[in-house]
Amino acid sequence: MNAINIGLVGAGTIGGGVVKILSAQARFFDEKLGLPVKLTRIADKNIAVLKTLPVGSAICSDNADDVINDPSINIVIELVGGTGFAKALVLKALAAKKHVITANKALISEFGPELFAAAEANGVSIYFEAAVGGTMPTIKTAREALVGNEIQSVQTITNGTCNYILTKMTQEGLPFDEVLKAAQAHGYAEADPTLDVGGGDTAHKVSIMASLLFGGFVPYESVYKEGITTITDDDIDYAKKLGYAIKLLGVIKKDSGSGIEVRVHPVMLKNDHILASVNDVFNAMAIEGDYCGKILLYGRGAGELPTASAVISDVIDVARNIVTGNPIRIPMGYYSIANELKVAPIDGISTRYYLRFTVLDRPNVLAAIASELGHNGISIASVIQLESKSDEAVPVVIVTHTAKESNLQTAVKKLEGMDFSKAKTQIIRIED
Amino acid sequence: MNAINIGLVGAGTIGGGVVKILSAQARFFDEKLGLPVKLTRIADKNIAVLKTLPVGSAICSDNADDVINDPSINIVIELVGGTGFAKALVLKALAAKKHVITANKALISEFGPELFAAAEANGVSIYFEAAVGGTMPTIKTAREALVGNEIQSVQTITNGTCNYILTKMTQEGLPFDEVLKAAQAHGYAEADPTLDVGGGDTAHKVSIMASLLFGGFVPYESVYKEGITTITDDDIDYAKKLGYAIKLLGVIKKDSGSGIEVRVHPVMLKNDHILASVNDVFNAMAIEGDYCGKILLYGRGAGELPTASAVISDVIDVARNIVTGNPIRIPMGYYSIANELKVAPIDGISTRYYLRFTVLDRPNVLAAIASELGHNGISIASVIQLESKSDEAVPVVIVTHTAKESNLQTAVKKLEGMDFSKAKTQIIRIED
Repeated sequence: MNAINIGLVGAGTIGGGVVKILSAQARFFDEKLGLPVKLTRIADKNIAVLKTLPVGSAICSDNADDVINDPSINIVIELVGGTGFAKALVLKALAAKKHVITANKALISEFGPELFAAAEANGVSIYFEAAVGGTMPTIKTAREALVGNEIQSVQTITNGTCNYILTKMTQEGLPFDEVLKAAQAHGYAEADPTLDVGGGDTAHKVSIMASLLFGGFVPYESVYKEGITTITDDDIDYAKKLGYAIKLLGVIKKDSGSGIEVRVHPVMLKNDHILASVNDVFNAMAIEGDYCGKILLYGRGAGELPTASAVISDVIDVARNIVTGNPIRIPMGYYSIANELKVAPIDGISTRYYLRFTVLDRPNVLAAIASELGHNGISIASVIQLESKSDEAVPVVIVTHTAKESNLQTAVKKLEGMDFSKAKTQIIRIED
Repeated sequence: MNAINIGLVGAGTIGGGVVKILSAQARFFDEKLGLPVKLTRIADKNIAVLKTLPVGSAICSDNADDVINDPSINIVIELVGGTGFAKALVLKALAAKKHVITANKALISEFGPELFAAAEANGVSIYFEAAVGGTMPTIKTAREALVGNEIQSVQTITNGTCNYILTKMTQEGLPFDEVLKAAQAHGYAEADPTLDVGGGDTAHKVSIMASLLFGGFVPYESVYKEGITTITDDDIDYAKKLGYAIKLLGVIKKDSGSGIEVRVHPVMLKNDHILASVNDVFNAMAIEGDYCGKILLYGRGAGELPTASAVISDVIDVARNIVTGNPIRIPMGYYSIANELKVAPIDGISTRYYLRFTVLDRPNVLAAIASELGHNGISIASVIQLESKSDEAVPVVIVTHTAKESNLQTAVKKLEGMDFSKAKTQIIRIED
């Protein structure tokens, strides 16, 4: 072997970053590995974009099959995105006995077992450090550094778009829609932001992390998810008054009887919580293990070069495995198809809650709310009811002590059926 | 091979933690590796301590040679500490073709090249994740995750004792000596705290990180170091007034002409600096690469189980290398003896400074100070001089704009020679 030959499919933002780093660092890889890492082929539908990149001697084409069909290619980097074309491409690459590196969280989260089985059958590997948390070494830490630990919990902010929006809503007092539009104008949010603001992107990432940390497969569909679209500037205001920050959090908790918890939803975090001050497009992940205690990773979760840097760390890992003949293909215990992990239903969790009722301002409403909550075993920690400025509906904000989700949902549903209730109740879980 | 046999030398705090985790997780390693990891031998001078640990079927002795001389042992874990007996032990283990895992930062920092050459000659490896930052995956991140980056800088809090002392001085307004005594009583500081509070421990760690990140050898002796013993409660007070926190920081900066900067000293960090809120015994490391941007690791830097957890991650890495026949012995580019890196002299750095002069309260003193600083090209950003309560010497606190260290030292020396100067000037560097 004279060189490790890389074929890149998809030269968009991250792919462009990969081309730039491979070009800038060629000599460095050569020295470190003792073998050149060569970008041999690049394919992108939009072949014109390749003219703007330092492609060197790479053979460029608009057909991904040119990469797959080149027998000299050892590693295919898939940066196409999506789960249609990308899935077919990865399966073809694996069948051609090429190692695959991808940043595609949806693909790994939704089709992991099928892909890993194909890799195993063909004696090659799939690496995906860039799929979760951009530049933070989340996969490596879960798969290697913490492997001797039994994991207690994970709390993670892994969607930069949502974090940017919530930060701006908090800092500038603007409503969701307005901040979303600004984020789209700045390129921090997609034209169709559904996957980000709806929580799907974070759900993809936590399903991967839960699978890695608990050594089985957590299907994407089993992850409970709520997005941030219903968070109002009122909620942000009340959170501030109460000493909390609102964040979209991915939460994983170990099985304590009814399955592991794997859920994505807005939360309130006390201002001194380690994740409360993670702002703008930054990502962070706190992992608590029984031996290591709580560790935190923090960094840029997205962007051309940060994400490309994570892809490059996979290139080095795979190249090193090739050079040394290391036959490890699948991270230990990961995505065993035989071991689909049981995920606890959201109804079964227990936590504290922020509730914002919208009710008519008349006697006995607070008493009715308190009474119904009490009936369901929910104890009130604090209440904010400000003087009404009109005859219209007013907000009543209640923070509860720890309560069971099913009890809380029952109480809220009952209260929403009462004639003083004027709108859907806002429920935001509080995480410690 | 039926099992990977571990020999542990040193069953103190961390060693005890390793015994506990290996015992608790035996089945887990078995499943993950497909081969049992067996604690086969333990040696400790104080053999009585072994009676309190879950040693299982391990053969216990008070003689480390019993471990070295057992041909079934694949991996020796050295947790003796120090650089005398421990160095001889590690060299004997390597000569006997056993892989070595150690948490010994002094040993790696001071004798790395010799040890790595011995490992290379014997076809075995040395792993040392626990040597820097306890449970934070610092070594793995530097060696693997960021390997495609050119590193710009590192800022790290890696000495829990110093961070605990500075935190308590800040939160409780107590002087250094008093807090040190309390820390010793709590077991957070050694009876002889010199290596911690003098900065030597942090210097060991940053010499290792600089070696890893820049692919050469940074000798311990080349690291500039100052400890925290001269920090007074006055400095803490002024820092608060100015909006800073005082921390003992390890700093690494890339070569910009006269060598890489590798230094350890107290610094002032703006309160919104990411490391300013790392308190108590916690550690953190911010690494900035040209592609990844700034990433942060945070976690417990010491303690029985957290540090043992890092040792166990090495056990898994080495065991996996043995199982797969991976011949990688030395982290890429690491500690090449042929490549001793040039470290810039402290005189050559440029930064901002906090200066606390102790001077007689009489006319023209401030003018003299300002003038001497100006002569040396040092521009003043802010001054605090409070009304004097007596005829005794008063503090004059000055924060400078960026200045050259050599100019600053010249100016301060000159001012200390003037008759109004009543004590040594406190100099604390300010890091951004």
